[in-house]
Amino acid sequence: MKIYGFPASTCTRKVLMTLNEKDYPYEFISVDIRSGEQKQPEHLARHPFGVVPVMDDDGFMLYESRAIIHYLDAKLTNNPLMPKDVKNFGEMEQWMNVEQSYLSFPAVQLVKQLYFAKMQRIAPDTAIIEGAMPKVEYALDVAEKRLVKQPYFAGSTFSLADITWMPYIEYLFPSGLGELVNDRVALKAWWERVSARPSWVKIVGKFE
Amino acid sequence: MKIYGFPASTCTRKVLMTLNEKDYPYEFISVDIRSGEQKQPEHLARHPFGVVPVMDDDGFMLYESRAIIHYLDAKLTNNPLMPKDVKNFGEMEQWMNVEQSYLSFPAVQLVKQLYFAKMQRIAPDTAIIEGAMPKVEYALDVAEKRLVKQPYFAGSTFSLADITWMPYIEYLFPSGLGELVNDRVALKAWWERVSARPSWVKIVGKFE
Repeated sequence: MKIYGFPASTCTRKVLMTLNEKDYPYEFISVDIRSGEQKQPEHLARHPFGVVPVMDDDGFMLYESRAIIHYLDAKLTNNPLMPKDVKNFGEMEQWMNVEQSYLSFPAVQLVKQLYFAKMQRIAPDTAIIEGAMPKVEYALDVAEKRLVKQPYFAGSTFSLADITWMPYIEYLFPSGLGELVNDRVALKAWWERVSARPSWVKIVGKFE
Repeated sequence: MKIYGFPASTCTRKVLMTLNEKDYPYEFISVDIRSGEQKQPEHLARHPFGVVPVMDDDGFMLYESRAIIHYLDAKLTNNPLMPKDVKNFGEMEQWMNVEQSYLSFPAVQLVKQLYFAKMQRIAPDTAIIEGAMPKVEYALDVAEKRLVKQPYFAGSTFSLADITWMPYIEYLFPSGLGELVNDRVALKAWWERVSARPSWVKIVGKFE
């Protein structure tokens, strides 16, 4: 099992966390997105849209992180991450789609402006921040209403939906936006619960 | 089973087609997106992000079309639309994500400018068209390479991945972009195959 990705990439982290949840061995091959390696012919042959991660499971190639983690959970049946109950399964899919449709784009905008731009000593673009902030706050309000009722997005058990939300929530803290999490009681409790998992501790904080 | 949606909406069509594939009875409740009904409190109570469709299965509410169709296929076990083979299942998820990440946004931009704007006698925005066109062409090139090898996105059988692509491909024709499909041999053959399904014929072409 080979994973082509970049340690700081949110989508790479989803795949690595899933593999760690399964205790499944993998070889990690770094594709340096800072230098644009993901747009070079060698990587475009693996992923026609030129992003990370890509999975190579003994010659079976797959791209798009949410597809890879669905595949990994279907293939590796220990520690299941997709609920058997059809309603919980539907909820898992809903929250994965909420992340993809409403959270990740504005969250990454904030992180780029308030964390990565600062690291590179570039002035943040306040118009982008002002546009993205209410969208992230609204998505977190919607999540809060869910997590008040259930400990995890898909119900009583940890699932792929939690995994897809985690990398975005994590980056809010070094962006100086930790209060967006800490001010929401159920979201904060969820974050403390999921971020303590050994599968997450093992991969977070690595940037290259 | 109630579906809140709008007949011309691409995401509503994905859900209705899935229900028709299952021959499962449903009540359709129109939410008129032309008058902004989806942003009114009554609909926001069903879908916090104010879009369509929403499913109400005897009190169990779910939103986001791709989540609803996953749920429907898990619940209704006749005529399965998710492959049992784990590799084909992974491929289905990959192509659903390609639609969501790379096809639907620029495709809808083209359809809005070249079809709906014309119907409303609004001049199309050529900058939007020029930005979206190469993205749609590239996504269709990637799809063509897949469909040359297999009759359906997930392999040998029709799946949720085909359903998610269909509404966007369909709208290219009335937008005057049918040659984007017809110039790609495998995509054209796929389109003729999938659009002949009774589940699709029953719902397409309806606008209110």
